[in-house]
Amino acid sequence: MPSSLPQRFVLTLACANRPGIVAAVAGHLSDAGLNILDAQQYDDTQTDRFFMRVVFDPVSGETHLDMLEKGFAPLAERFGMTWTLRDKNEKRRVMLLVSKFDHCLADLIYRWRIGELDFEPAGVIANHPLETYGHVGLGDIPFHYLPVTKDTKLEQEAKLWEIIRESRADLVVLARYMQVLSDGLAAKLAGRCINIHHSFLPSFKGAKPYHQAHARGVKLIGATAHYVTSDLDEGPIIAQDVESITHRDSADDLVRKGRDIERRVLARAVRYHLEDRILLNGRKTVVFAD
Amino acid sequence: MPSSLPQRFVLTLACANRPGIVAAVAGHLSDAGLNILDAQQYDDTQTDRFFMRVVFDPVSGETHLDMLEKGFAPLAERFGMTWTLRDKNEKRRVMLLVSKFDHCLADLIYRWRIGELDFEPAGVIANHPLETYGHVGLGDIPFHYLPVTKDTKLEQEAKLWEIIRESRADLVVLARYMQVLSDGLAAKLAGRCINIHHSFLPSFKGAKPYHQAHARGVKLIGATAHYVTSDLDEGPIIAQDVESITHRDSADDLVRKGRDIERRVLARAVRYHLEDRILLNGRKTVVFAD
Amino acid sequence: MPSSLPQRFVLTLACANRPGIVAAVAGHLSDAGLNILDAQQYDDTQTDRFFMRVVFDPVSGETHLDMLEKGFAPLAERFGMTWTLRDKNEKRRVMLLVSKFDHCLADLIYRWRIGELDFEPAGVIANHPLETYGHVGLGDIPFHYLPVTKDTKLEQEAKLWEIIRESRADLVVLARYMQVLSDGLAAKLAGRCINIHHSFLPSFKGAKPYHQAHARGVKLIGATAHYVTSDLDEGPIIAQDVESITHRDSADDLVRKGRDIERRVLARAVRYHLEDRILLNGRKTVVFAD
Amino acid sequence: MPSSLPQRFVLTLACANRPGIVAAVAGHLSDAGLNILDAQQYDDTQTDRFFMRVVFDPVSGETHLDMLEKGFAPLAERFGMTWTLRDKNEKRRVMLLVSKFDHCLADLIYRWRIGELDFEPAGVIANHPLETYGHVGLGDIPFHYLPVTKDTKLEQEAKLWEIIRESRADLVVLARYMQVLSDGLAAKLAGRCINIHHSFLPSFKGAKPYHQAHARGVKLIGATAHYVTSDLDEGPIIAQDVESITHRDSADDLVRKGRDIERRVLARAVRYHLEDRILLNGRKTVVFAD
Repeated sequence: MPSSLPQRFVLTLACANRPGIVAAVAGHLSDAGLNILDAQQYDDTQTDRFFMRVVFDPVSGETHLDMLEKGFAPLAERFGMTWTLRDKNEKRRVMLLVSKFDHCLADLIYRWRIGELDFEPAGVIANHPLETYGHVGLGDIPFHYLPVTKDTKLEQEAKLWEIIRESRADLVVLARYMQVLSDGLAAKLAGRCINIHHSFLPSFKGAKPYHQAHARGVKLIGATAHYVTSDLDEGPIIAQDVESITHRDSADDLVRKGRDIERRVLARAVRYHLEDRILLNGRKTVVFAD
Repeated sequence: MPSSLPQRFVLTLACANRPGIVAAVAGHLSDAGLNILDAQQYDDTQTDRFFMRVVFDPVSGETHLDMLEKGFAPLAERFGMTWTLRDKNEKRRVMLLVSKFDHCLADLIYRWRIGELDFEPAGVIANHPLETYGHVGLGDIPFHYLPVTKDTKLEQEAKLWEIIRESRADLVVLARYMQVLSDGLAAKLAGRCINIHHSFLPSFKGAKPYHQAHARGVKLIGATAHYVTSDLDEGPIIAQDVESITHRDSADDLVRKGRDIERRVLARAVRYHLEDRILLNGRKTVVFAD
Repeated sequence: MPSSLPQRFVLTLACANRPGIVAAVAGHLSDAGLNILDAQQYDDTQTDRFFMRVVFDPVSGETHLDMLEKGFAPLAERFGMTWTLRDKNEKRRVMLLVSKFDHCLADLIYRWRIGELDFEPAGVIANHPLETYGHVGLGDIPFHYLPVTKDTKLEQEAKLWEIIRESRADLVVLARYMQVLSDGLAAKLAGRCINIHHSFLPSFKGAKPYHQAHARGVKLIGATAHYVTSDLDEGPIIAQDVESITHRDSADDLVRKGRDIERRVLARAVRYHLEDRILLNGRKTVVFAD
Repeated sequence: MPSSLPQRFVLTLACANRPGIVAAVAGHLSDAGLNILDAQQYDDTQTDRFFMRVVFDPVSGETHLDMLEKGFAPLAERFGMTWTLRDKNEKRRVMLLVSKFDHCLADLIYRWRIGELDFEPAGVIANHPLETYGHVGLGDIPFHYLPVTKDTKLEQEAKLWEIIRESRADLVVLARYMQVLSDGLAAKLAGRCINIHHSFLPSFKGAKPYHQAHARGVKLIGATAHYVTSDLDEGPIIAQDVESITHRDSADDLVRKGRDIERRVLARAVRYHLEDRILLNGRKTVVFAD
């Protein structure tokens, strides 16, 4: 990133709750010549854990991420914090996985292209060939065609992981990828792999959720973005939304209406992740929304 | 009802789909000097069943419900219709069942009192004593205190049924009644007993759905109004709605936010039923909304 | 369109209300060997006008649009109907107008490409050059670059009209075109030109509605799709939607959030128009939604 | 309030933005033996003003509000803060004003009675007699009948103000009061008088907004809760919500649907005010929602 952008940093932290955390963090930043631009916090009174997100910049001059980290480490240790510190101007690298339906892919690419989502595309991995996505406008983004069958699933996933690793992707997005990741891969991507499921979980887990919803006769359908865990459709939920339907809607209508919900829910979840707004809280998430 | 109100009738029907139904029904009404005010129809192309709701009045003069029924019967027989014909000016009698939480009861009573919901209260049956509901404004509505314990459930339900029967209630509303009806009673009330469940079914069936939702970390909560069947929480869904929540919402906050969703969803379902807008379609509903 | 698709026709009509219209229409179709698949009607009791939309197909064999029209004309005349009859398999030709912001254009093109919106692109007219829209995937769609300045507005609009006319466009969509049409052109396109305005009209008419909304401190923003009339931002409203915002949202955030609302509201309005679901009722619309 | 409730305090503040405010506030509280339970902040980068809300309790023992105020005053002065400090266990006194339509009154009273809204009713002032509200369950709440005509408006308002003053009301809620307050009274109640307007302002200001909305043919209706200022319908907006409508909805249907929106929007605004979540920011509000 060009150094001409004003510096801006994001600190996230979680620790056991006790008096004085905010004062300690705010005091440390102030003493270090840093100005808090935004701060949000949350006490989980059930588990007695404390969560915080702070955005700050230097009051004057420039600073360096590693200096900031060195400065903060003792305080973090004192409170037993799990923490991250990130330069907002360093873009995250995002790998997008897709299958036949590319509405989420097309949407994420569009939002990236107009600057709404601020990331560096690390590549697209698809189990359909490049021409399937001719109209999506992938441009120079590295494209990997990794077809998969029941018999080749193991080898395909090994290649998948290699590509992710070599691309130095910070975040993997299953943009309607429609393949269940193995427990091993899910573990490797813990906390940095987002999936979009086309139902308002925990309703209609598993395959063909719109058809399940149609058969049950619900009056609303939805979509859920969640972190991938080895426990299918049980990962921490990041964002959900729904729309009303009626008896007139066929299963195909649900699929159509669902596309709109899926793409906006997934885009919201990806944005929150890119902006370090999501902290894991057991099997749940703390989302410091804007 | 005073005869001074203009006459207005509602016909609902369901039958196997085949060409000419609309023409036959519309032609019959026209020939009988009746004017269609509103008509809605639906073909379920999966099951090939046809559903229709027609509102009509006499072009001139007065008519009688039994004459209309006699007139329509041959046509209904020809098409093998399941049908109902109702004088809109004849109010339905509604029995309201409630437990400790009375927000749905209070809301239905208020809507009845200001004329928004057009019914005749047949009574209130509660498993808490009258003074619990002192502020609800029950006025002259017959009140029945039927406490229930595990041991007395059978006898209590027998009395419940007796009261419903003797009150000639057309519709029974479980306004947060919190007791599961026996299969037998559910069968007796088939198609005329509406329950409000405090989750967006089929998520979080059974007890304490808000606590289940809180534990799972969903980002929206909801409520579902459905007809009661012997299969708990599996009855045909009439109406659903949701609201967004965040990690900051405790289980108690969900209960609070849920009250608003419950009362508006239940009120909508009751209104649709009172206006003959709901037709059963297997385990689903056709709702001819306004 | 290939003749292999099953035939399907849409009839829309409006006339002064009087008894027997439904019976006459349904009887006529039945007698002509046509089967009603869907029918919706509406009586405007304020103006005493009647509106109807009927979808039908031949019970057996094939039929022809002009035969259907000839058959229906006497009945239409008898009731003084304004009416249209259309072969659903004949695609409408749509001309898309765009300025710098192309999110609505990209969205409509994507929905067309995956078959969600069923039309024939007649072309794109833009006041920025083709390379501006490189990522939208216009493919073979005729592109017309028509830059405009205050001084050239008149000539530019003359060319615009010529292109629309020569392309035989049935519908013109102002997909964030950002230019006010002259009264003359608005009149020529009456009832077949849809605009998306980025506010919940009638709030925030005119320029920079998101900035107006931000300055006023509203807690929700929206978008409105409407038919274009000579009276700016006053045309009949087809569809509207909103989203919640907070004090934390800057005017730029509103622009970002608004893009999502705009594209889904415009897509909905275009789909309703393409499916003959919208009937004009004075300065309002009757929308027979699905 | 019984002293047995755990102590809890809310601090709100606004001042010109500059580095170190959060550190200074958090440090002060920590040094004073106080523990931050919740903190939210907002920088208005347009006006460069800083807003903060902090909830805290004593780490151990008891404390007193006036001691806290004395302790905080020097810091507040140093930063030029506008600030309030409140004991959460001290209930606010609320005066409710109502006219003929009592759905908002009934709703607020119900929420108060079940403990959802935590306030002390200071009284009800109505321009209809007590029997109009017989079913609302006012109980012991002081009721004042203040009929008003064009000719008596001045005297009526003088009495109104006297009652408000003598009742020591902290907050005045116009729960569909339908009378415009004079500039003088509006000024006296600045920042502590909430009105519910039955439109999504700034659309449909003034009288009969639902009828205006029906005439315009909008596809959604709404309600707006705002602080009362001398500039009618222009006060700072606290909360808004909307619902979809269709061409089938008559003006009366809008009134019915609107009641639900009005009561939930007003209840939300009142709750936010009671919990010190609203800070004024010029003609806008900062709402630190939960």
